[in-house]
Order: sequence, then structure tokens, then C-alpha cells
Amino acid sequence: MSSETPATDLAYYKDRLDRAQTLIAEAGIDWLLVGPSADLVYLADYDAHNSERLNLLMVPAVGSPSLVVPTLEAPLVGKAGELAAVHPWNDGENPIDVVAGIIGDAQGKKIAVGNHLWSAFLLRMQGALPGNSWEEAVPILRSMRMNKDDIEYGKLLEASRRTDEAWEEFLTSGPISGLTESEAMARLRELTEKRGVKGVGGICASGPNSASPHHHTGDRVIQPGDAVIFDWGGAYEHYHSDVTRTTFIGEPTEEFVRVYNIVREANQATLDAVKPGVSLQELDRAARKVITDAGYGPAFLHRVGHGLGMEVHEEPYLVEGNELPLEVGMVFSDEPGIYLEGRFGVRIEDSVICTRDGGKRLNEATRDLVPMS
Amino acid sequence: MSSETPATDLAYYKDRLDRAQTLIAEAGIDWLLVGPSADLVYLADYDAHNSERLNLLMVPAVGSPSLVVPTLEAPLVGKAGELAAVHPWNDGENPIDVVAGIIGDAQGKKIAVGNHLWSAFLLRMQGALPGNSWEEAVPILRSMRMNKDDIEYGKLLEASRRTDEAWEEFLTSGPISGLTESEAMARLRELTEKRGVKGVGGICASGPNSASPHHHTGDRVIQPGDAVIFDWGGAYEHYHSDVTRTTFIGEPTEEFVRVYNIVREANQATLDAVKPGVSLQELDRAARKVITDAGYGPAFLHRVGHGLGMEVHEEPYLVEGNELPLEVGMVFSDEPGIYLEGRFGVRIEDSVICTRDGGKRLNEATRDLVPMS
Repeated sequence: MSSETPATDLAYYKDRLDRAQTLIAEAGIDWLLVGPSADLVYLADYDAHNSERLNLLMVPAVGSPSLVVPTLEAPLVGKAGELAAVHPWNDGENPIDVVAGIIGDAQGKKIAVGNHLWSAFLLRMQGALPGNSWEEAVPILRSMRMNKDDIEYGKLLEASRRTDEAWEEFLTSGPISGLTESEAMARLRELTEKRGVKGVGGICASGPNSASPHHHTGDRVIQPGDAVIFDWGGAYEHYHSDVTRTTFIGEPTEEFVRVYNIVREANQATLDAVKPGVSLQELDRAARKVITDAGYGPAFLHRVGHGLGMEVHEEPYLVEGNELPLEVGMVFSDEPGIYLEGRFGVRIEDSVICTRDGGKRLNEATRDLVPMS
Repeated sequence: MSSETPATDLAYYKDRLDRAQTLIAEAGIDWLLVGPSADLVYLADYDAHNSERLNLLMVPAVGSPSLVVPTLEAPLVGKAGELAAVHPWNDGENPIDVVAGIIGDAQGKKIAVGNHLWSAFLLRMQGALPGNSWEEAVPILRSMRMNKDDIEYGKLLEASRRTDEAWEEFLTSGPISGLTESEAMARLRELTEKRGVKGVGGICASGPNSASPHHHTGDRVIQPGDAVIFDWGGAYEHYHSDVTRTTFIGEPTEEFVRVYNIVREANQATLDAVKPGVSLQELDRAARKVITDAGYGPAFLHRVGHGLGMEVHEEPYLVEGNELPLEVGMVFSDEPGIYLEGRFGVRIEDSVICTRDGGKRLNEATRDLVPMS
């Protein structure tokens, strides 16, 4: 089911910049500096790419934002050119001089920097603007970016649904035994991209490779008796899907079925624990308890999930030690796994939103164990 | 023509790490810290991906390197696990504590940081290791990475040749008039990827869009009378091709032909200026002189080129102000352009290596003006 998402106009971004300025001022920060990243798209609808040529959105606590941009990319700024004063710089000029000129020579300022900005630029700015203090922008921006509005939720849901549909078609698309991991992943990618999901990437991990959570999809040939993990997704209007399903080639072994069911139960336990106000680490604990009680605790090698939005991994993280409380509108992955080194692994991942009434999955691709041939 | 490139074994990387340590020591630097980047692949054959989970190669001026790695990615370290002591950290632990533990509590150290490391990690390390000074690693590593050895040159040449072949086939692959920019780019990408060039990306800019050097390929339909720029490339064994060709749909106008020939002449002038010892800015000047003398100086919006290797843009940069001398083994793009706003643009780009006897092109796809339909 496809639905048109509402248009986002200048006022939508103006409001975000206003809120960012309020948060900056409240935190006693003088400047927020954001390079090419999801933050830049979020605040100013400018999808610049990271390169050795500096693009930088400069948001003061009070006053008008500026955008430092390479001259040859100035035609690309779009809406951002109406949200900020554009300062183009030419090849051969030093953009750090432009940045320093805008900030001025006052000292003792607090400057927050977007987390993806390359260190090279930060080091050059620290050198050009001595006597100021530098900190991460994440704590300021995350309260905005973690809580998805209806427009964002609509895009995330659309991304998830289209990705789910691809899985359903993949399951009946013919044998994958005999294909390499790369070939199987290419088929799933094509089924996902033909539904308008862009930049699809992912992991196909087969047989013993499935016990490596971040396996690099490669040339191993999938064969009968393999567990096969597919962890993939892409973007719909900048918002990502991120799904994992595990299948088995041929008749599943008893042990595989047992492990599969434990992981599925842990996935459900995470969902059941979602409630506004509950700390994020409780979600990790909920899944971990199921897996630990079943005797596989040490084989659950990672946290249970991560935030999802314009980045595939973003705040909030569902990890031991994160005492941040769940809020309505947070969207995150629920992806417990069990990894038995040298043998096989199982992971089941859905995207989930925290609503007033608890957790709600964005993914509905079957979580039943469906063997393939 | 395909040729197998020589295998690279542990000793190949060990030698690079040794040389890096020598350079670090000579520069009075205590530690070199490298996150996921071409530097990491270059030094330790570890192709980690950037994420919120820190991967960090730590190279001391003297002694053994360490590799801080998320536990769930530890199975991926490969050779790097033999080149450095691996320090895995689990979700919920703080990898900055691990880094600080390895560096120890001595102060006044000089720490060089790879240019692509996310600022978030640098800020956390600066907080955890106060009293030390931080600087860019680029000046140290560039002398190694700029000068390609025979193995690297072989891979770059192979990437370029395969990309050239794709262009030759593209020219006779049928009309592109009536296709969108995205569709035309997809065809060229497919022709390039089927030759084993990976992760092909690029720009197709048609009609007035061709006057925007970094245009975002989009839905504009290519039509008769358009200038169309294709700027694309991909990786062969981690080493990139980067080619630009400009075509015209139908019978080229007199003005287009004139501009095309000026750009082609400027491309040749850059090549002719290549000689060991000449400063890099002289190459930019050589191309700029041709274009300026022809009356189009202000329409040449960017530097004439950039280094090429495991990154599409890397040191050295061929730009006014760069007085670094050319050395044998440097590989870079030669890509002058003329951009007439609202009308059309022309760019012709080859990759070039500096040899003892002057510049030598890696690309031989025709630079003749070949109109398409």
C-alpha cells in the first residue's frame, strides 16, 4: 500500500532551526556547526556530500544561520539558501577563514560540532579559533531527531512496508542454494529497489558466516543445511528501513529451530517491554533475559537495537547503561541474535515505534521460520 | 586487457606500518590514530565501516600497533589481527576508555588523527586525554599515499581501462535522448560494473544542468540539443577510476564545438605541464591559461584536479596555492571545465600519472567529440 507523504515546505525546516536555536541557547552554547550529514538534511534540507571541500551550516544561539559552501556546489543548496546566508568559497581559498570570520574573534565561546564532521575540519577550526571550547552536538540534536513527527513516521513506515513486500516476494523467488551470498543479496536488493527503496545495502551471511553479526557478504556458495541471515534495507525519501530475517536451506535441524524460536521470543520480549518512561537499557535486558535463560547468553554478542531514521544507526541506542527513558515517537530496531561461532547464527530484526500504548512494529514480513531451497 | 595484479601479503603492510612509524617519529609525533578510512585499508588491510561503534588503529612512534574493534566486528579484522594487537570492546563498554588505557596517562604527547575520523570520537578522546596536543595525520601519511607503487598503479590502470571500455560501449548502446539522467547513468553504471568495477557512482548532467559541476543526477529528460556530461567511476581492488566525457545530442552547435575544443586543449595543456619537480599549482595554471586566453576564465569554476587512489579525492590537489612539487608516482585527475550558467557545460577528465618522462594518461576512452542520439 503506497501513500503520498505530505509535502514539507520552508516553514517545516524554519521551525526545526528555531527549535535547535532554543535548545542551543538553553544549553549555553554559542554556535552549532553541522557538516554534511543527516543533521544537515534534517535542519536545512541540504543533502551535501562529505569531501575535502567543506560544507558547513553554522547556527548561532541568536541570529541568522550561515551556510559555508564550495562555489561549485552552490547550485545545489536549494531551500537551505533561503534558510541561511550562503557564503560560497572558491577552490584555492581557505574555508576555515570564512568560518572564523563569521564566528569572529571573541573567545570563551562554546561551540557544538555535528558528530560526523571529519576530524580534519574540527582540528583546523580549533587551530583557527583558539580559546573556545568544543563539544559534541549530539546531546542537543538528539532530543529533536529521536522523536519522529507524523511526516517522518509516515516515511519510515513506507520504507518498512516496501522492504517487507520484497522479502515476501524473495521467499517465493526460487532457490538460493547454489548462489553466492553476493548473488542472493543482489536478488533481494533488486526486489527491494524496484519498490522505490533507494540505496539498498545489506548483509547476506550463510552457513558459518551467519555467526559473524557484521559479516561482509562474499563469494561463499549457499548450500543445503545452511542458516542464512539477510539484514538489509534502504531509504524512502531519506528515511530508512532495516530488517533482518533468517532462513534455512532445506529441512531445519532441531537445534536451529530451537535457537530460532528463542530469538523470536526475545524479539517479542523487547517489543512487549516498550512503554513510554521505561529506560532504553530495559529493552536490551528484556531480550537478553530470554536468551540467557535459554542458556545462550554469551552468544548474544551485541545490544538489542539502535535508533532508526535518516540514519540506519542513530540515537537512541538500546544498550546496557543507557538510562534515557523511552518517549512517544522514538523509532528503533529490535534485533536480538544468537551466534554460535563456526556453526550458525540467527537474528530477527524489526523496526518499532514507541506509542502511548506501547511498542508497535513497522515491519510485518513474516517472522515464521520459512525454509528455502 | 585484463592482468592479474600481484598478491599483497603481510610483509607488504608490515612495511607500510614500519614506514609510517619512521615518519611519525621524524615528525615528533607519539601516536597516529586512524579510524575507518582508506588510510586504514592502506596501513592494515582492514576495510572497516564508519559507524557509532569505534574502530581505531593506534600506531605508536615506537612499539607495536593496537587495533580497537567492536566485538561483533572482530571476525572481520583479517590480516590486521596479525599486524596489531586486537582490543575488542563490547556494546555497553566505552571504547574511549580502551584507547585511553593504551595511550596511558602521560601528558604533553602529540597525537595525529586520520582526517576522516568522526569529530565525535576526536572530542571524546580530547576529553579523556587532556594535556595532549592533537593534529592532522594527513601531512604524515600523504607522502606515502600520494606516491603509488607498481601494485597500486596496476590496479588504478585496470580500473581506468575497464571504465574506458564501458564508455566505448556506451557510445554505441543506442539513443539516450528520451531517457532521464538517472536512466542514462544507470546504463553506463551497468556497462561499467559488468566489467568488474565495483560501487560505480557518478553524475549525469544534461542541458542546463551540465553547467552545475556537482549536479545531482535526476529526473530531467535528455533531449536533442543538450550537452550531456558523464562523470563516473568505481573501484577495482579498492583503487578508483574517475572519468568525465561530454557528449551532445544531435548536431552540435558551433558554440558547443568551440567550448569543447577549448576544454580539450586545456586538458592536454595540463598533461603537457606534468614533470617531476613542477609545483602542483602549475598544472592548474596551465589549464586555466588556455581557458582564460579563450575568454572563458570565470566559467572554469574549480581547480583542475585531485589525487586519485583508494579515495576518489585525495592528496595531492592541483589547485592554486599548492606549491608541493610533483613526484614520480603521483596519480591525479586532469579535468578542466567550462560552465555557462543556465545554458551548458563541458568537462573532460582523465587520470594521469607523473612519470620520470612526464605525464601519462591512464584513460584512453576517446576524447573526440562523439555526438549521441
